Amino acid sequence: MAIPKVAVIGASGYSGSEIVRLLLSHPEVELTTLMTANRERSGTRLYSDELRQFRHRCDLAIEPLDYDLLQQRDISLVFLATPNQTAHDLVPELLERQLRLVDLSGAFRLREAGLYPRWYGFEHRFAPYLSEAVYGLTEVLRPAIREARLLANPGCYPTSALLPLIPLQQAGLVDPQSRIVCDSKSGVSGAGKTPSSNTHFSEVTESFKAYNVWRHRHSPEIWQELGHHRLIFTAHLLPINRGILSTIYVKTASSASPEEVSACLIRAYGKEALVRLCPEGEFPEVKHVAHTNFCDIGWRQQDLDLIIVSTIDNLGKGAAGQAVQNMNVMLGLEETLGLL
Amino acid sequence: MAIPKVAVIGASGYSGSEIVRLLLSHPEVELTTLMTANRERSGTRLYSDELRQFRHRCDLAIEPLDYDLLQQRDISLVFLATPNQTAHDLVPELLERQLRLVDLSGAFRLREAGLYPRWYGFEHRFAPYLSEAVYGLTEVLRPAIREARLLANPGCYPTSALLPLIPLQQAGLVDPQSRIVCDSKSGVSGAGKTPSSNTHFSEVTESFKAYNVWRHRHSPEIWQELGHHRLIFTAHLLPINRGILSTIYVKTASSASPEEVSACLIRAYGKEALVRLCPEGEFPEVKHVAHTNFCDIGWRQQDLDLIIVSTIDNLGKGAAGQAVQNMNVMLGLEETLGLL
Amino acid sequence: MAIPKVAVIGASGYSGSEIVRLLLSHPEVELTTLMTANRERSGTRLYSDELRQFRHRCDLAIEPLDYDLLQQRDISLVFLATPNQTAHDLVPELLERQLRLVDLSGAFRLREAGLYPRWYGFEHRFAPYLSEAVYGLTEVLRPAIREARLLANPGCYPTSALLPLIPLQQAGLVDPQSRIVCDSKSGVSGAGKTPSSNTHFSEVTESFKAYNVWRHRHSPEIWQELGHHRLIFTAHLLPINRGILSTIYVKTASSASPEEVSACLIRAYGKEALVRLCPEGEFPEVKHVAHTNFCDIGWRQQDLDLIIVSTIDNLGKGAAGQAVQNMNVMLGLEETLGLL
Amino acid sequence: MAIPKVAVIGASGYSGSEIVRLLLSHPEVELTTLMTANRERSGTRLYSDELRQFRHRCDLAIEPLDYDLLQQRDISLVFLATPNQTAHDLVPELLERQLRLVDLSGAFRLREAGLYPRWYGFEHRFAPYLSEAVYGLTEVLRPAIREARLLANPGCYPTSALLPLIPLQQAGLVDPQSRIVCDSKSGVSGAGKTPSSNTHFSEVTESFKAYNVWRHRHSPEIWQELGHHRLIFTAHLLPINRGILSTIYVKTASSASPEEVSACLIRAYGKEALVRLCPEGEFPEVKHVAHTNFCDIGWRQQDLDLIIVSTIDNLGKGAAGQAVQNMNVMLGLEETLGLL
Repeated sequence: MAIPKVAVIGASGYSGSEIVRLLLSHPEVELTTLMTANRERSGTRLYSDELRQFRHRCDLAIEPLDYDLLQQRDISLVFLATPNQTAHDLVPELLERQLRLVDLSGAFRLREAGLYPRWYGFEHRFAPYLSEAVYGLTEVLRPAIREARLLANPGCYPTSALLPLIPLQQAGLVDPQSRIVCDSKSGVSGAGKTPSSNTHFSEVTESFKAYNVWRHRHSPEIWQELGHHRLIFTAHLLPINRGILSTIYVKTASSASPEEVSACLIRAYGKEALVRLCPEGEFPEVKHVAHTNFCDIGWRQQDLDLIIVSTIDNLGKGAAGQAVQNMNVMLGLEETLGLL
Repeated sequence: MAIPKVAVIGASGYSGSEIVRLLLSHPEVELTTLMTANRERSGTRLYSDELRQFRHRCDLAIEPLDYDLLQQRDISLVFLATPNQTAHDLVPELLERQLRLVDLSGAFRLREAGLYPRWYGFEHRFAPYLSEAVYGLTEVLRPAIREARLLANPGCYPTSALLPLIPLQQAGLVDPQSRIVCDSKSGVSGAGKTPSSNTHFSEVTESFKAYNVWRHRHSPEIWQELGHHRLIFTAHLLPINRGILSTIYVKTASSASPEEVSACLIRAYGKEALVRLCPEGEFPEVKHVAHTNFCDIGWRQQDLDLIIVSTIDNLGKGAAGQAVQNMNVMLGLEETLGLL
Repeated sequence: MAIPKVAVIGASGYSGSEIVRLLLSHPEVELTTLMTANRERSGTRLYSDELRQFRHRCDLAIEPLDYDLLQQRDISLVFLATPNQTAHDLVPELLERQLRLVDLSGAFRLREAGLYPRWYGFEHRFAPYLSEAVYGLTEVLRPAIREARLLANPGCYPTSALLPLIPLQQAGLVDPQSRIVCDSKSGVSGAGKTPSSNTHFSEVTESFKAYNVWRHRHSPEIWQELGHHRLIFTAHLLPINRGILSTIYVKTASSASPEEVSACLIRAYGKEALVRLCPEGEFPEVKHVAHTNFCDIGWRQQDLDLIIVSTIDNLGKGAAGQAVQNMNVMLGLEETLGLL
Repeated sequence: MAIPKVAVIGASGYSGSEIVRLLLSHPEVELTTLMTANRERSGTRLYSDELRQFRHRCDLAIEPLDYDLLQQRDISLVFLATPNQTAHDLVPELLERQLRLVDLSGAFRLREAGLYPRWYGFEHRFAPYLSEAVYGLTEVLRPAIREARLLANPGCYPTSALLPLIPLQQAGLVDPQSRIVCDSKSGVSGAGKTPSSNTHFSEVTESFKAYNVWRHRHSPEIWQELGHHRLIFTAHLLPINRGILSTIYVKTASSASPEEVSACLIRAYGKEALVRLCPEGEFPEVKHVAHTNFCDIGWRQQDLDLIIVSTIDNLGKGAAGQAVQNMNVMLGLEETLGLL
């Protein structure tokens, strides 16, 4: 069987270049095409001239977006690593060319079009695609992902929150009356590559802050996938490059013993290659997941209060890594290829 | 009036040397004596030979602990910046010499002697002094501090949690049935100067973790001062040197409007020099309090859910700064001297 | 005698706000005026609304630049902490108002107007002021500084290089035929407050690089003050906020013994309060000078090869600290006031 | 042909665990054995219990060192990632068992046994093996490496210095009378995993220093391979985890034009996969080589003064990466396997 060919649109950003890095050492797909949707950039440049770390590793050029070319080159799957609104604008045309898509933006994550103006700042014009899009939380939604044409790759914070919470919620172990608190901390690469005073080195080093309190756009994404709004999500900016740690405070259902909680998580993830459950009483650290596609989960309950700590690399399992994992599922490849 | 003379026992550690730094530029006290309780160190050394940053700033020597000398030198107040058990052992003898003490350790913070074996790992032999000790949360307990002989300087995390919570709790604005969640993050200097794998640079940089989950010794200190146990405290290690940020999730009493919450905090701190309330909708950042004695507090309520964020420098308002503030109060000096 | 009043033009940047911080705790001058030369900013804002760390510390407003007002307010000295070309444009008008100036930019550091187009990218129109300006390397040029009307405050890198080198050069201890190598490393705050990809957190953390190799504008400043061009200066960007360390490789004159080298440095700085010579065989570290106005110097010679390491805080002795030190000298105050 | 089996002795340290990480994704060797020479550790533990980042990736146990077992298991090559003296003690016995060795320590790098007491602090008892050992600077000494029984893997600093310097030196482009200055800066992981005050987070973050000035043990290694002592090497500690940057100042031979220098480097490395020459006028950055096995080299000459900047990952090309590269050469595999 021929090795599938894949393309990346938006390979210059942090998520896009991490996809390229992963694909370059992937044994069973071939990265053949890099395109940009940025019209200010005309002509063709060598990718490794723009991102020097790819010298001696990638000799592809960045070409201007060209739908026909993608078809002619027999591309099996396209990664979209563009800003939200760019992805929103490109997806319909790409789907019409029969291309399968993994969209790393938030443009097709929320099922209700009406939420976009408030949370993303633009009108969503493609509600039908919102219904079709499959949310790519791989371990939880694998069967649907296999068949997806348009895969909405999860946000970084939601991945860290949903992986531990969904099984507990589905098993009825979460008290339905109480608020869940999800206190999340992320490295700066999550804010992207565009310089700003929020990401200026002298402002970030030796500091720490909460941001977008009560109004972070990952809140509705978490609420949607969890099936309710009784979760308070707060984002914080860590003075590190890569990694997310979420500390999650759950009131368990009155009948839920610590043993049941543990059994539930082990049932969900005990055999998963890319989710690692900490031994009892241990909690994960960001450094053990940085530059990997793992989600590590530790937890401990006292009476009805359960503390869960989960860690991911925001560019790994929180973006590019999970995107490649989803590609593996969509193309029928072994799920961990290129990720271990 | 003669300028009061003060001494520091344990000036080599991070808190102790920060006290020295503050006292050196304090206009109305004189630091005359540095002593060590560490018996492995014999003889007398120049302080600035051990801590090179004090060259050209401090020409005192570190002398072995000598109770008589402290009396002879007419010391008005002694700072204890030693390990917990060392402070426990020294305090009675120092008090008998009529010395007033500011103890930065936890040895006299908990009123119940019975809590010490579990939370501090040693038997407390001086229960009467536990009753006498005044907890030094300056803005909250100023009148008692004025008269204190033995001042128990608050822990760093408790300071960041208690300053915003106590006024709300006392005003009845906190729902008595619900858990408060206090998710705190601290710089590494809070762990002290002794090297360990937990504080090894390569293990800390670009990482982040929770630690001592469900069993951090600052929990009972917070519970005691808040007057109840319905608070979950979790500590995390930030890859920075100095600073604490606590994100606090409170369910307000059903009758508490956002206006009442704000009014309560303004009533408590609106005129305080060293507590700064953020304008509405703003939240504090660690960098604005690092190397200061400020506690910055921001908050925002939605329905009955209140998020508070407070920041301090763990070595400033969380240790040495508050110790100097308490000294100012105890000696009848202007409270902010040497701190602005 | 009335306390002298001072003003800062450009107080929002890193150097300017450090000057403000120092002046607020200076016991013998009064900071009365903050002005901006940036015409895009109209109206008057509270300084502490723009720089939140100054809440409860400074209640001045930032006013638009107004020469008349500076005169009316009886300002004794103005700090200019603006971009180079802005300072170049403002200085003549300010001098005509009989104001004494400490200019932190490079606009009046080079004596030859002809050097400005190449090294600073603009034509210098005020050659006479270049001759008048006094280079503010305090310990070296104190007598001239006392009388200066226009003080050109030294660059950060030149301060770290010139303090150790000038005495050795003047004493004839440097081999006149050989190149001196000055390999310097600076924290990111030296690049200022404007975000760019060079100072984007994710690009700087866990990295390190040389920049402007062979063409850094501090080279001609060092050559000028040292009196020759036989010095290679290379700048590097450290992933820290504040601090410079320069490692300097000197071939000594064949007659120069290690004892003579040490004697020369001790003669120059042994009694200086703000230059600290390391004991033999010790070398300085950035952390001991960060947030101070010290320059620490260590050195060690083998045969004719001398290695010198000097450290400063680029915003302290390398900018705002030395500016305040120069102000003290110019106003006839004790030189270390506000700096220890 | 059977896939070669390899073993690592000392897999718990930073270099050892990086070797394990690389071998786990190497397609043509099998890591079958982890052993420890530390006698204080008895019994067998799961590697991933000690190094949590290896959970789900490596299910090997760490066994006590057992020469017979290595032979029985048909090990083709053993990596030694132990302290210097441990390697010194183990090597003879391992060689007698006909095992091929890649030793990452310095125990067999210096050809003169007499240098060990001064530079390494122990007597070297195995001078004959010093003569036999092949210095593993892969690109320079490939033919000898192919046949090596005992490969002395180069030190991290020497790798960064020697790769650019050896071709220039061999081509006669370096002025034989002048000193070369090699000013090197390394991340903290180079200091190993044992906590000390030098590597305590609070002492390293936001700081920078030179260390072991005039007496770093990598000096004689560089002198030996370069063929002379006219090079001054200074090491500095960067507040980062991984990476080395060396700034090298060379006086070129009077006849050497910039074109010749460039031609020489291109001749040496233009076709090398793992050495990347920067385009003219560009200089490398640590971040582009971190977590890789590349050495990046940039340079620029003015008159006879040549500045070279080289970067490596101290654990990659400076240790584990080059060790795996050397293994590939020794076993006749493609040289870049597992490294791109």
